[in-house]
Amino acid sequence: MTTITQLSNQKLFNGQHIQFEHQSAVNNCLMTFSVYLPPQASEANKVPALYFLSGLTCTDENFSVKAGAQRFAAEHGIALIMPDTSPRGEAVPDDLDDDYAFGQGAGFYVNATQKPWNKNFNMYDYVVSELPKLIEENLPVNDIKSIFGHSMGGHGALVIALRNATTYRSVSAFSPVTNPIDSPWGQKAFLNYLGDHLASWQQYDSCELVNIATKHVPMLIDQGLDDQFLEEELQLENFIAATNRVNYPCQIRQHAGYNHSYFFINSFIEEHLAFHAKFLK
Amino acid sequence: MTTITQLSNQKLFNGQHIQFEHQSAVNNCLMTFSVYLPPQASEANKVPALYFLSGLTCTDENFSVKAGAQRFAAEHGIALIMPDTSPRGEAVPDDLDDDYAFGQGAGFYVNATQKPWNKNFNMYDYVVSELPKLIEENLPVNDIKSIFGHSMGGHGALVIALRNATTYRSVSAFSPVTNPIDSPWGQKAFLNYLGDHLASWQQYDSCELVNIATKHVPMLIDQGLDDQFLEEELQLENFIAATNRVNYPCQIRQHAGYNHSYFFINSFIEEHLAFHAKFLK
Repeated sequence: MTTITQLSNQKLFNGQHIQFEHQSAVNNCLMTFSVYLPPQASEANKVPALYFLSGLTCTDENFSVKAGAQRFAAEHGIALIMPDTSPRGEAVPDDLDDDYAFGQGAGFYVNATQKPWNKNFNMYDYVVSELPKLIEENLPVNDIKSIFGHSMGGHGALVIALRNATTYRSVSAFSPVTNPIDSPWGQKAFLNYLGDHLASWQQYDSCELVNIATKHVPMLIDQGLDDQFLEEELQLENFIAATNRVNYPCQIRQHAGYNHSYFFINSFIEEHLAFHAKFLK
Repeated sequence: MTTITQLSNQKLFNGQHIQFEHQSAVNNCLMTFSVYLPPQASEANKVPALYFLSGLTCTDENFSVKAGAQRFAAEHGIALIMPDTSPRGEAVPDDLDDDYAFGQGAGFYVNATQKPWNKNFNMYDYVVSELPKLIEENLPVNDIKSIFGHSMGGHGALVIALRNATTYRSVSAFSPVTNPIDSPWGQKAFLNYLGDHLASWQQYDSCELVNIATKHVPMLIDQGLDDQFLEEELQLENFIAATNRVNYPCQIRQHAGYNHSYFFINSFIEEHLAFHAKFLK
């Protein structure tokens, strides 16, 4: 059993909000993550898990304090698992120009193949394998799981669910990067992490992945129409076209007036928790 | 009509979260505040206001992004008014040792009488007079109002409601400083802002003010019992004793396991909004 260290434990909606750190084998560094355990969770009553993947620059804390998700996790008896967005630390490489969209805080949920990134930037394996194993071994959480995310984390959630359709019961996203192969953020990250290999890029692009999907994961996407990143980086229309081409079922809702912030997440978080709760029972 | 400048306007629960700045006459500096206008608010349908006073170190933003209050303000049709906790800026004096509990970020909702603080630190008049006038002149908000706050802001809310019992329909507090005359935070602030005059201090101490209250304001206080500041700074037991002595009615709830953080506020914010909504109709 791998060691995890509890950094803090705070009561919230009669459950526990706990921050942990541990030495990650796949990322070769100390990783921090947060978990919300609803009041229903106990060794005798393990609860299902809903993983939230955050966007650029975020740590495990942004969603923890800004999204208002724990209220509904407590209501539905679901554990929230909130990983960091990348490996971190002085021994971990970072963007030389401090670009917020690449390097630390911007792991893009891929397994890097290129030096120097490949030693630490393996967030795909971290989220899909290492973290769930750790959670299920150490906490009153069972192996029933769903996943969601915001922006870069919305991309991560869609990619991970599409590639692991038998593992995740449902997937949802707020304002996801849907077609990173075709977006400036995605192109810089993929070129550096994955090299100039289109086949590798396609493994991490939702618009590509729906083409080869053999099993459909229940899917919900919410997008604000006053989102400054919508046209250039998020490209929801590309994803709509891709899912229409292959008849991949996805509930996509576009909301006038909402921007890219946590205020948008807050406004619709109740419905995302209710969506996942249906499939996690 | 005083000029207020809109810094941002974001959609949230179908209403608007707006940040403003303006030149404050009573504080002699630029002040920032945030307002949440629920979807019901319009010039033809002005809504009542609930003022939230924040705690030490906070700006108008902490409660805005962490408390989860807008969901219920939207539900009840109440505007939230979120002022800063003090005057700010390079021309405003600050604690020389950067004490988080005094100076900028720590106005304690008093009118300072001592130099150099008295030029800017007049948060009592700011919250009671200048800000409501500005709000009611410029926004679709009527003059029906209640007030609540956290920690130092819980002290501010109780003091302001007790001294203006005909102005505020109801008051509530999370983890308030109830007896600042007797607490280290309060003593440092009052000595510097008000000088060594007990009579001045008593005007800003809830335990003193209940003694001379002639009209009762409906009052709710929530306190976590794992709050690190409870014994030395908050001293709820002194307030319980004071209200019992004079039969001042107050609903006081003590909650095992909760600390001083916004997670505590989040866990009970729905009930505070419902409490005030009853009196703001």
